[in-house]
Amino acid sequence: MTAKSTASKTSKSKETPTARWISYRPEIKVVDCTIRDGGLMNNHQFDDQVVKAVYAACSEAGIDYMELGYKASRKVIVPGEYGAWKYCREEDLRRIVGDNPSSMKLSVMADAERTDYHEDILPKKDSVLDMVRVAAYISQIPTALDMVKDAHDKGYETTVNLMAVSTISERELNEGLELLAASEAKAIYVVDSFGVLYSEKAQYLVKKYLQVCKAAGKEAGMHAHNNLQLAFANTIEAIILGANFLDATLAGLGRGAGNCPMELLIGFLHNPKYDLLPVLRCVQNVIEPMRSKLLWGFDLPYMLTGFLNEHPRAAIKFKAAETKGDIAEFYNSIWE
Amino acid sequence: MTAKSTASKTSKSKETPTARWISYRPEIKVVDCTIRDGGLMNNHQFDDQVVKAVYAACSEAGIDYMELGYKASRKVIVPGEYGAWKYCREEDLRRIVGDNPSSMKLSVMADAERTDYHEDILPKKDSVLDMVRVAAYISQIPTALDMVKDAHDKGYETTVNLMAVSTISERELNEGLELLAASEAKAIYVVDSFGVLYSEKAQYLVKKYLQVCKAAGKEAGMHAHNNLQLAFANTIEAIILGANFLDATLAGLGRGAGNCPMELLIGFLHNPKYDLLPVLRCVQNVIEPMRSKLLWGFDLPYMLTGFLNEHPRAAIKFKAAETKGDIAEFYNSIWE
Repeated sequence: MTAKSTASKTSKSKETPTARWISYRPEIKVVDCTIRDGGLMNNHQFDDQVVKAVYAACSEAGIDYMELGYKASRKVIVPGEYGAWKYCREEDLRRIVGDNPSSMKLSVMADAERTDYHEDILPKKDSVLDMVRVAAYISQIPTALDMVKDAHDKGYETTVNLMAVSTISERELNEGLELLAASEAKAIYVVDSFGVLYSEKAQYLVKKYLQVCKAAGKEAGMHAHNNLQLAFANTIEAIILGANFLDATLAGLGRGAGNCPMELLIGFLHNPKYDLLPVLRCVQNVIEPMRSKLLWGFDLPYMLTGFLNEHPRAAIKFKAAETKGDIAEFYNSIWE
Repeated sequence: MTAKSTASKTSKSKETPTARWISYRPEIKVVDCTIRDGGLMNNHQFDDQVVKAVYAACSEAGIDYMELGYKASRKVIVPGEYGAWKYCREEDLRRIVGDNPSSMKLSVMADAERTDYHEDILPKKDSVLDMVRVAAYISQIPTALDMVKDAHDKGYETTVNLMAVSTISERELNEGLELLAASEAKAIYVVDSFGVLYSEKAQYLVKKYLQVCKAAGKEAGMHAHNNLQLAFANTIEAIILGANFLDATLAGLGRGAGNCPMELLIGFLHNPKYDLLPVLRCVQNVIEPMRSKLLWGFDLPYMLTGFLNEHPRAAIKFKAAETKGDIAEFYNSIWE
C-alpha cells in the first residue's frame, strides 16, 4: 500500500522506499487508551494486575504512549465511587510503572473544568508522566488553552482532544481550531465521541485539522468510537491523509461501542517496532474476560445512538439493565 | 452526504436533489444473505422458523433480494450432513415463502462445479426464485459463463460472484472480467472472501469492476467479510464509487467473521423504502440467540487469517475447539 499524495505532502518523512508505505510511516505515534477510555465503563476501578498487564503488553508491543487515566478534581469528583485511575495520583502511577523503565511514554487525560490542574499536575521533574492530553468541548476552549499552557510550562508534551466533533458547527470549529493552533499543544485530535462519522465526514475533518495543524507545526490525531463499526476504518483514513497521532485500545475497550481496536491497528502498521503478539495475549487473557461485566463493544443500542449523533449514555443504561429490554422500544425511545 | 463525481457519473439517477445523496440512490439493491452465508457456519441446518423469521423481517424491511441458500449437487454433496438450505429444492423454498407474495425477490447461490445446474435449476416459470448468483473462483470462469447462460435462458436474473478477489493476480482478473463482461450476468461482484481488503484496495477493485461493468451495461456489487471490521466501511466505499448491488446479513451472520451487518447498511441508506425496525427485532430475537453456537463475528482468529489473506477455515476450527486454545500459538501456527 503506497501513500497518497496528500500523505506524502503532509508527512515529514524522507522519501525512502519504506516511507512511501502509509502503514509504515515512522512519524506515526500510537496511543493506548485502554485503561483511560475503558475506565468510563467501570468508574476507573481496574485492579492493579489489569493495569500492570496492559502496561507490560503495550510496552512489549512497542506502543508509543499509554494513557493511564484521568487527572480529575477530587473536590468535584469525590473519591469512593471512582477508582484510582480517575485521579492518577503519582503514587498510584508509580505503584504500576515504577520509574517507567520502558521507552513507552505515559499520558493522562485532563477534562476541562473538571481538573484542579494547577495543583494536581505536578512539575514534570516530579512525575513519571510524559504527556497531558486536555479533553475539551468546543465551549471550553479558553480553559483548555490555559490547561495546555500550564502543562506545557511544567514540562509536559500536550495535546488537545476536541470532544464530540460531530456536534460542532462549522463556524465554531473553524474559530476553535484557529485558537488551538496558537497553543503549545503538540497535536490536535479529531474526536468522534459519538462514533457517528462516515468516511466522507471523517476525511473532511481530518483534512481540515491537518491544514490548521501543519501550518502551525503540529500533528493531527484521530480518536474514534466504534458505534458504526467504523473506528478502525476511520483511523486508516486518517493515516492515509497524514494524521500521525492514533488512539486505540486493546480489544477496543472504551466507552459504549469502544474504540479502534489496538490489535487491528498494530496489525495494519508495518513498522517493525510494533509487535502484535503481546497485544493478542493481553486481549485474550486480560481484556476479553472483562467483557461480560464491562459491556463495551459494537451492539445495536450503541449503533442506534451513533445513527442519531447522540451520547451513548442511554445505550449504556439500556445494556446494563438487569432485564434485557426490547431493542425496538429503545429505538423508539431515543427518537422522543 | 453528497455523491462524489464518480458516483454521479456512474449512476443512472436523474439529478433530483435526493439523488445526489449517495445513501439514497434509488438504483441500489440490497441483497440479504443471512441464511445463505450464515449456513456456512451450521451446514445450512436452520430451523424453518428461523428462515421464516428472516424472510418476514427482510420483506417488511423493504430489502430488495433475499438469498435462501445454495443449489448444491446432491450427487457430489450427499444430503444428511447438510440441511435443506444447501440444496434449496423448490418444495423447501415454498414451505417458507409460499408463492412469495412480497415484493422482495428471491435468490440462490450456485457454486461453479458443485451444482447440477442443468437439472436442479428449474425453468423460472416453475420456481419461486427470481435470481441465480453464480459463485466462481477465477479458474472456474468458463463453467460460470455456462451456468449464467443456463440460468439466464431459463428466465432468471443472474450475477457472478468472483470469489476471493484478494488472491487473484491483476492479469487474470483483467482477463476474467473481460469474459464476464460479455456474459448475460446483470451484476459482477467484488467478493472479499477472506475479509482482507483495506479501503485503498477496495476502492481500486470497485473502480476496476465498475469500469468493466458500466461499459457492458451491468452493475457492480460488493460482498464483504468482517475479519478486519471493514465490511461495512468497504461497502460504503463501494456505494460512494457507484456499486449498486450490496450484500449484507442480519447481525453480520456469515462465514467466519461474518458479513456487512444489514442493520448498519439499512441505517446508512436513507431511501424511505427501507425500514430498520424489523431488522432490529429479528437481530435481537432470532439471530443473536444463535451466536454462541454458530460462532460468527469479528474475533482475533478471524482477524489473523484476514491479515494473512487466508481462508478462515483454520480460525473456524480454532474457535470451535472444545478447549479454548492460545491465540499466540494459533498466530504462530498459521505462519507455518
